Amino acid sequence: MNFMSDNVTGAAPEVMAALAAANEGTAPSYGADALTARVEQRLAEVFGTDVAVFPVATGTAANSLALTCLVKPWGGVYTHADGHINVDECGAPEMFTGGAKLVPLPGEHGKLAPETLRGAMDKAHWGFVHCVQPMALSLSQATESGTVYSPADVRTLADLAKGKGLKVHMDGARFANAVAGLGCHPGDVTWRAGVDVLSFGATKNGALAAEAVVFFDKGLAEEFGYRRKRAGHLFSKMRFLSAQLDAYLADGLWLRLAAHANAMAARLGEGLSALPGATLRDPVQANEVFVSLPEPVIQGLEQAGFGFYRWDGQVVRLVTAWNTREEDVDALLAAARRLVGE
Amino acid sequence: MNFMSDNVTGAAPEVMAALAAANEGTAPSYGADALTARVEQRLAEVFGTDVAVFPVATGTAANSLALTCLVKPWGGVYTHADGHINVDECGAPEMFTGGAKLVPLPGEHGKLAPETLRGAMDKAHWGFVHCVQPMALSLSQATESGTVYSPADVRTLADLAKGKGLKVHMDGARFANAVAGLGCHPGDVTWRAGVDVLSFGATKNGALAAEAVVFFDKGLAEEFGYRRKRAGHLFSKMRFLSAQLDAYLADGLWLRLAAHANAMAARLGEGLSALPGATLRDPVQANEVFVSLPEPVIQGLEQAGFGFYRWDGQVVRLVTAWNTREEDVDALLAAARRLVGE
Amino acid sequence: MNFMSDNVTGAAPEVMAALAAANEGTAPSYGADALTARVEQRLAEVFGTDVAVFPVATGTAANSLALTCLVKPWGGVYTHADGHINVDECGAPEMFTGGAKLVPLPGEHGKLAPETLRGAMDKAHWGFVHCVQPMALSLSQATESGTVYSPADVRTLADLAKGKGLKVHMDGARFANAVAGLGCHPGDVTWRAGVDVLSFGATKNGALAAEAVVFFDKGLAEEFGYRRKRAGHLFSKMRFLSAQLDAYLADGLWLRLAAHANAMAARLGEGLSALPGATLRDPVQANEVFVSLPEPVIQGLEQAGFGFYRWDGQVVRLVTAWNTREEDVDALLAAARRLVGE
Amino acid sequence: MNFMSDNVTGAAPEVMAALAAANEGTAPSYGADALTARVEQRLAEVFGTDVAVFPVATGTAANSLALTCLVKPWGGVYTHADGHINVDECGAPEMFTGGAKLVPLPGEHGKLAPETLRGAMDKAHWGFVHCVQPMALSLSQATESGTVYSPADVRTLADLAKGKGLKVHMDGARFANAVAGLGCHPGDVTWRAGVDVLSFGATKNGALAAEAVVFFDKGLAEEFGYRRKRAGHLFSKMRFLSAQLDAYLADGLWLRLAAHANAMAARLGEGLSALPGATLRDPVQANEVFVSLPEPVIQGLEQAGFGFYRWDGQVVRLVTAWNTREEDVDALLAAARRLVGE
Repeated sequence: MNFMSDNVTGAAPEVMAALAAANEGTAPSYGADALTARVEQRLAEVFGTDVAVFPVATGTAANSLALTCLVKPWGGVYTHADGHINVDECGAPEMFTGGAKLVPLPGEHGKLAPETLRGAMDKAHWGFVHCVQPMALSLSQATESGTVYSPADVRTLADLAKGKGLKVHMDGARFANAVAGLGCHPGDVTWRAGVDVLSFGATKNGALAAEAVVFFDKGLAEEFGYRRKRAGHLFSKMRFLSAQLDAYLADGLWLRLAAHANAMAARLGEGLSALPGATLRDPVQANEVFVSLPEPVIQGLEQAGFGFYRWDGQVVRLVTAWNTREEDVDALLAAARRLVGE
Repeated sequence: MNFMSDNVTGAAPEVMAALAAANEGTAPSYGADALTARVEQRLAEVFGTDVAVFPVATGTAANSLALTCLVKPWGGVYTHADGHINVDECGAPEMFTGGAKLVPLPGEHGKLAPETLRGAMDKAHWGFVHCVQPMALSLSQATESGTVYSPADVRTLADLAKGKGLKVHMDGARFANAVAGLGCHPGDVTWRAGVDVLSFGATKNGALAAEAVVFFDKGLAEEFGYRRKRAGHLFSKMRFLSAQLDAYLADGLWLRLAAHANAMAARLGEGLSALPGATLRDPVQANEVFVSLPEPVIQGLEQAGFGFYRWDGQVVRLVTAWNTREEDVDALLAAARRLVGE
Repeated sequence: MNFMSDNVTGAAPEVMAALAAANEGTAPSYGADALTARVEQRLAEVFGTDVAVFPVATGTAANSLALTCLVKPWGGVYTHADGHINVDECGAPEMFTGGAKLVPLPGEHGKLAPETLRGAMDKAHWGFVHCVQPMALSLSQATESGTVYSPADVRTLADLAKGKGLKVHMDGARFANAVAGLGCHPGDVTWRAGVDVLSFGATKNGALAAEAVVFFDKGLAEEFGYRRKRAGHLFSKMRFLSAQLDAYLADGLWLRLAAHANAMAARLGEGLSALPGATLRDPVQANEVFVSLPEPVIQGLEQAGFGFYRWDGQVVRLVTAWNTREEDVDALLAAARRLVGE
Repeated sequence: MNFMSDNVTGAAPEVMAALAAANEGTAPSYGADALTARVEQRLAEVFGTDVAVFPVATGTAANSLALTCLVKPWGGVYTHADGHINVDECGAPEMFTGGAKLVPLPGEHGKLAPETLRGAMDKAHWGFVHCVQPMALSLSQATESGTVYSPADVRTLADLAKGKGLKVHMDGARFANAVAGLGCHPGDVTWRAGVDVLSFGATKNGALAAEAVVFFDKGLAEEFGYRRKRAGHLFSKMRFLSAQLDAYLADGLWLRLAAHANAMAARLGEGLSALPGATLRDPVQANEVFVSLPEPVIQGLEQAGFGFYRWDGQVVRLVTAWNTREEDVDALLAAARRLVGE
């Protein structure tokens, strides 16, 4: 029973079936195939607006390449200090942008507050050649703390950023979980709220390895083809990336899978936070639970074979996925209750 | 009937089956899984020596990241002028290495001759800070002209390079075809002949998207993990890359697939070169045919729906693959013969 | 009367005379001249140890190029958040290092505290490919707040850093002012305390444009020649850089100039802090005064034609230089006293 | 008697005097001073058109930074194979542009022929993401072979380049020598002939270390300020760079100095080529002489203490400068004549 991460799970059956289907016959390479075109169309429908779409295979590639289209090498990117781009990509954004600077900002529960962003922008030395120039804001949706930005949250931050000429990127490695959690239209937390480009994740939520860089401002996408190729992220047999995304988007599969993962996280969060001595570090709004547990509970669960991360001191992280079983959640909760002697 | 490229084809059934099998249960992410370990072991067996192996998804990633481990940003890389790294990767090696210089050299039939390499090295300004310093030799095996380097060819070139302190890289996007064509032990054209690192291709020969960077000099691999990650080429669900490679390597599948492709190319080359007015531009030693055809034949074949590339003037390129059917080859040859009135 | 910065001043007469002298006859180019050799020798004497020395023309070049020899592109550099490399170089360190990350740390009066560094290193994910790896510590001496690290301060920080395998860089744009302020041997706050490479500044303290990158660990200098050249920082007529440094180092000129600037800053700091409503933000330990003044005093001084920077709110920065005149300091103090009605 | 290079000489007296004058008083830093403004004005007058001017200290910096404003990281730059940017800058253009590719082209006497450029552009794969996209043409004026492009030469090449959307850069490290040799208006071989940006050299022709990047297309200069700063090439005491350029441009000094150097080269070339067994490799059109000499002459001159470069086999390079003395030229010629027994 593995709650380590949503990337320890496999792919959804629909995605596997799509791969098999895509394997029939020949197809033009490098994205000139019909499936790739259909993915772009599907995403246009999902978001309710025209989009330019580029499939890639990893979230780090999606984020880093998207940012290269938004900032110059001397640009600054505002990000939550815990942002994946700032912490978990080994400097990929810096490398791909030619040295742009991630400007880390603090924020409760993984979210940036408008006053924090405003304060940072007020301190910036605009037009001063000695200083990196703020050029983009990047938001994680869902955040690294398992919380989500509401459409109003995004709009407020994006309005501030755009008022200063910044572009807005959204790291949506868990975008499906965020939208499923919010229950809103996907367009409401993205382009309608001011997002210019989205890293639309699928890998964690039922694909093998597939993400889509979705440009709402298509003018920003002009160079993406070259940037993707020279990064080694243009797949010759592109149809196999696109087939995953195509199945993922068909019939709302992406939201169904995410809703299940979210429900399992909610169940886990509720059960764990009811334990004596336990406290949720963050509200559970997507598919991650950050909870502080008594040390004996942590150790007991580990010894019982449950997989999860020790995050920070007694805070542990448990992640649910599209195929997490309710009985596994309940088994963990039961074990935890036994450990506190309930 | 599509002879455009070996990347218009799908994946071999064994590879698809391996993907399905890998999809069962959970697995540690980012390469800590059992399949990834097994791929390394299999490649050690295939090459008959200890190796460090890093799966990636594209040939451009494999080549570029491999080169970053061989050269400094002010290093020079000798390559055939037609080399994929020089012509078809949109500057990826330059980007990933931080600006190293590809030094293009001429050579008949896509191959570098020892005297050409020696001449270039003699002209280099060793230890002179004004000039890029030669640090690596990169050979394509099979070459971009569908020819192959013999073990002796590789050794001669590698000896020259190593005599000057250079490292040796091999771009093996079509390595299986080369080895199948040569009929030699895979170790004989690589580490035993002086190759330090190999881009071992699988995508073109029956995988969906899988290549392995194989270090024979494991000391050179130390930084690869960081370089791969910050390039966005570390897959969270790595087992799906490794599963492809695992099946590809099992029971000699990779060589069987390549031998078939080569046989089809040989048949095609023989048939086409027998036409009046036709001349093979290069010997057919792997799975590509470069042949000069009378203009009416080219146009007639195009109109008949045969897919291939116009390479240069009346020279066309036809590529066969692991699943090219003999009857398709024969159909093309029959059509060509009709077009010349035979 | 201009207290804006120490770079609004010209060069010392001795430096100008040295330039004129260096202009006689011909000399080998690119640093093979006798003056350049003598500068290296002089610095070895000044520091009491063997050094490798590379003249460059700007502090940003010195810092950025020095850092490239200490960190890999996926390395992290600990720096005070206010550090010149972090704030005032428009991303030069990121560019030259190929994307390394500056990790900003807080600290009172511009100085890093050992516990802050230790805390940051404890949180780092050592050996984890997802995260930038700490590889260097960079200290400003004097700091951006006009304070200095004592030899013991440097040693404590360097010991911590080196305990984790980090290299230690010192940004000595105002190194002369720091040493003059400390009254210690130059070796005591550098190599004897664990500094590996120093950006030894001269421009602000009496040169036209000359800095020296001084490697105490000569093994780290091996690649510097190439890095400097490809950055466009290798001067063909190098003797004109070296002549400045040579004169600057001769007969203790560098420390005499700095001691004067420091004395003027002390006089300024003492005088201003004695005003009602005035508070020194930081102790005056080199040639900069950061002081909070009543708003009418600030405006009055500005109207009277005194040049200085508004730093932050009512905190202003005044910088003295090698040629600041005592009567100018006194004129400013008198004006300030008049403005508060004393 | 040193004919090694024009960079073994010092600076002209007028330039030294200007430095001394610029050392009086204080001046705003980083280029906000009056001298820097005057240099821009002087260059506008010299070229007869509005220009944006950025002083830097080395030719490598001027060329590399200029190119960053013309090409994307996946851009190609056509250059003569012998071009300084291709051979003598240790990959600086590649580094500063983020990996752009220099595409070397052959050409007699250091000059590109229109048909060579046209042929290269015809072979380029425009708009194809797999291939580097040609974006700039860079011409050396004077060339690395001591020859010059006429205004018509430049216009023909520039027209070809611009017809394909390329920008045109001129490496004018020896621009003064070229203009003095051509006897044309400086605008005729630059903006009127299609040049967008010029590296206007002064160092080799009487300055200590000063070059100006001159943008004729001012729209291309927008980012230059940031690029120069983050390259460490923005001088705090900029007036000392500008003072050199100001004196260099005043009263036609730059052309007088160059005309003298050219006359000395002509005298040298004439004298040497008259020797039995001697042949000029290239016409002498600026201040460099490439001449093939009998081996005993070469060795004899070396033993007699004359400085020059062995270029290639029996071809030697002799360079004259603004202060080369006629009697030194004659002494060399006399010695050479003695060596051939005349």
